[in-house]
Order: sequence, then structure tokens, then C-alpha cells
Amino acid sequence: METAYFNGKLVPKTEIKISPDDRGFLFADGIYEVVRWYEGFFYDMNSHISRLKRSLRELRINWDGADLFPSIALDLIKLNKLENQPALVYLQVTRGAARRTHFFPSPEVAPTVYTYAWGFVPDRQSKESGIKVMLKEDIRWSRCDIKSVALLPNTLSFQEAYENGMKECIFVRNGLITEGSHSNIFFVIDGTLFTHPESNLVLSGVTRKNILRIAQEAGINIREEAVPENRIRFIKEAFITNTSAEVIPVIDLGGNTLGDGVPGPVTMLLREKFDAEIKALKG
Amino acid sequence: METAYFNGKLVPKTEIKISPDDRGFLFADGIYEVVRWYEGFFYDMNSHISRLKRSLRELRINWDGADLFPSIALDLIKLNKLENQPALVYLQVTRGAARRTHFFPSPEVAPTVYTYAWGFVPDRQSKESGIKVMLKEDIRWSRCDIKSVALLPNTLSFQEAYENGMKECIFVRNGLITEGSHSNIFFVIDGTLFTHPESNLVLSGVTRKNILRIAQEAGINIREEAVPENRIRFIKEAFITNTSAEVIPVIDLGGNTLGDGVPGPVTMLLREKFDAEIKALKG
Repeated sequence: METAYFNGKLVPKTEIKISPDDRGFLFADGIYEVVRWYEGFFYDMNSHISRLKRSLRELRINWDGADLFPSIALDLIKLNKLENQPALVYLQVTRGAARRTHFFPSPEVAPTVYTYAWGFVPDRQSKESGIKVMLKEDIRWSRCDIKSVALLPNTLSFQEAYENGMKECIFVRNGLITEGSHSNIFFVIDGTLFTHPESNLVLSGVTRKNILRIAQEAGINIREEAVPENRIRFIKEAFITNTSAEVIPVIDLGGNTLGDGVPGPVTMLLREKFDAEIKALKG
Repeated sequence: METAYFNGKLVPKTEIKISPDDRGFLFADGIYEVVRWYEGFFYDMNSHISRLKRSLRELRINWDGADLFPSIALDLIKLNKLENQPALVYLQVTRGAARRTHFFPSPEVAPTVYTYAWGFVPDRQSKESGIKVMLKEDIRWSRCDIKSVALLPNTLSFQEAYENGMKECIFVRNGLITEGSHSNIFFVIDGTLFTHPESNLVLSGVTRKNILRIAQEAGINIREEAVPENRIRFIKEAFITNTSAEVIPVIDLGGNTLGDGVPGPVTMLLREKFDAEIKALKG
């Protein structure tokens, strides 16, 4: 029996009932986080908690339980016997259930808080051989810095990539490459590591931040600057990052083979250093 | 006891249980419609059905029940004893419940279909005296033509207007006025009626379409053309339209008093002709 967390209680997942009046269901009025469990610890839980609190602040959802998330997540790992395998824990907080109005419920209602965990098998092939990704106009809103559940544009775009045999959809806005449907993207041009700066147009990925730190520690030249789509021919390497997939080399960007069409040396180095950090944390 | 419709059945609303795996809840992967009941009939149900089918097509949600909506809606009006009062019926269709993946569920799952009805008291004061509205940068995605439930930007924007004592938030994108958070907007400049053309940046409102027809029948000069924000000083009249509120005069647009600060003659004429059409339909 799968155990999940709902509004303060650990319960069988099948018993969870979201109200049809929930603003998450009616308006996408909610936020989420995903943390990765590495057989013994959650990687950089602190950054996830910080981002969670920021998302809640930006939407003005008052949930005072963000600091409880690590212990809830750990409970779910244990109760679902996931301690000894790669796993993910998902948290969603919505503004709660109330009569449908475009304005916030008044008086305020209790937020809906939902968390569940699942084991997964990392995609070793993508990590080793690299992936092809699609390039597509960024159709999302202009607050991509908020990790909201208003993910319809992400799913529609990813589906298009998926049906074309590609493993991610990378967005281009006003001629500049922003990020993927559920990842950040990095480029190597002339030996310098580029990624879109933190802004309202990209999510501040936790893995993004850690890879930037690792790259800096490795003495790699970094520029947090958007790469224009019309400079693709200068890109020698690319990779995407996210919490579940970590670092995945990109060997083809919108039909353009990058470098030699195999994961590049900077990508490999950063991936190895990230893996080494995980290994060290495992002790 | 409030009766609603859920996945093929008329049930007490309190018994409806949305799965936490529902893609409406996790991804805003769904669409909706709202129709208005006028003590005896739904106004222009055909246009709502057409738009519903278009929304489903755009999202590639396979629900073959769209043509059943009029009879479901009527059942809900009757079962909830709303026949003799102004009422609204809300329909939401999501891609259904499945393990959380950015790609569509494969194999496909049954969509989630939810409908409910409620009586309401029309806002007579706004209709007669007009409203003040806020002007704000359009932060929404670029497929506003799809009536999706990814409404977080709409609610955040409307809330800001609401807290500032205004009755709608009107969006400006790239210097052009598009529409409201849940309405279309019309302007009168030099005796000509302007509204944003149908495009990916606005919803094709049913009331918008009918007001355009009524204006044409009344011999009013019409231009479906976006009005730039920097031409506000030329606007003599404005009004918003939507299914529940019909035609509401706007007397102040982002702090700019329009005309004499009272509902203008073109607005009044169109509102009267719309009311007359409703009256004729009531027979």
C-alpha cells in the first residue's frame, strides 16, 4: 500500500480526495517541489526548501509547514520502503478549496498540501550517450521563476518533442535560448560555460546552481548569459540539468549536431564531479 | 443537497473525489467552459459547444461527450432548482488521472469530466454605473485562445486589481491592450468600435462575438484591431464583456477617466440591444 501525505496526515494514497473546488484543480493556483533521495539522504534539501518558500511567497500562499517538508519526505521514503533505491518526493501546495472566484478566497482557507514518493530507475543511457532535444518557441508565461503547477505549456511542448523522438523541449524566447520544459540548459562555447541568468524567464534550478558552483570550483570560465538561437553553430557542447536526471549531455539541438555528436569533455567533467559529490555525501 | 456531474454520473457534489494524480491538479492539463442560464434557456450554447470542442482539439483531449453538455447542464439546472433565476454552469475536462509524466499518459486514460451549476445575483451596480479597471503587463502564456485551466496568471493579476478596488485587470502586451483576466474589452474611438482581433493572445469570447454582431446590425463602425496603450487619451468609451456579466461599462482605465466618467452612448446602446435580445429569447 502506497502511503502519501495529505493535509497533515500520512494516509494511503488511494484515500486522498482532492475537492473539485480546489484552486489547484480549477486555476493551477499552486506550487510544487521535487527532491531526490540518494539511498540515504536528500540532495541539497536546503535549496529546495528555500525555493519552496519563495514560490509560496510569490503566490502569497500561507503555509507554515515548509520546514516540516524534510521530515515528511523522510517519513514517506521509509514508509514506502524506498530507503535503498533512487527515489523522488513530490510536494504540491495549493491555495486550498473555496467557491470559484478569480480573487483569492476571503476569508482565507487552509492550503491543500500533498506529498508522495516513488522509486525510479535513472536513465543511464541518456546520461552516458546524450540526448537529442527539440527547439521551440517559448509559449509559457513570463513568471517561469515561480515553480507553479500551471504546467500546461510545458506538457504540450514536451509532448511534441517526445513524439518526435526527442528527450526534452528547449525553449527560445525573443531569439534567446531560455531553458527546457523541465530542465535548465548549459552550453560550452569557446571553452566558456553559458547558461541563462536567473530571471523571470527561467526556473532557478537547484542542480543548475550546484553545477555552476562545481564548474567554478573546477576553474571553468562561466557566463550566466543567454545564448541566442542564431549562435547554435558556435556551441561545442550542451547539457541539461534537473533534480531527477542530474546532468544529461545534449548531442543534438534542434537538428544541429553539437561538436562531434558525443558528450563533450566539459560536460563529462562536470558530470563526474557531480557524481563524485554524491558519492562523497553517501560516505 | 447540491448535485453535480462527474465522469458520466449525476452525484452529490460533496461526493466528488478528484484524484491527486489528476493532470488537471498536477499540470493544469485541462479546459473549461461556463454557460449562462437565463430563466429558461442557455444563451448561445452552440458557440460554447464549438469553443469547447476547439479547446479539446487544441489540447488533444479525447472526450466524445461535448454534445451531451447541453443536456447535462439542463439536468443540473433542474436538479438544483435553478430554473427561475440567473445561473451559471461550469464544465471542466482534464486529460485524466495517470502517473505524473510531462508527456501525455500512454496508454491514454479517460478524461476527467466535472460540471456544476450555481445561481447568482447579477452585479446591477457595475452594469449601470460602470467600473474602474487596472492596466497591467500581460504575464500570461501565448495561447490565450485556449480556454485552459492554467489560470494562475489571471488570478494573480485579478487579485491585484481587486485589492486596489478595481473590478477587472486589463492586460497590455507589447504596448497593445489585449483583454481582461476574464473578459474581453471594447473601446470607442472617434465613433468606431475597437476590440483586439481573434488571435493567440485573446480568448474568442462568446459575448464578444455576439456584441460584434449586434454592433454590426446597429450600423456601428467596427475595427477588430488592438488599441495601443499610448492611445488611451483618444478612448471615449470602453466596456468589457463576458458570459456571466454580459456588458459592463468601463469608466476608468488604469487611472484614466474615459469620456465624462459615465457609461457612454455606444456602450449603452449595445447593452440595451443585448438585453433586448435576451428578452426576445425569453419570449
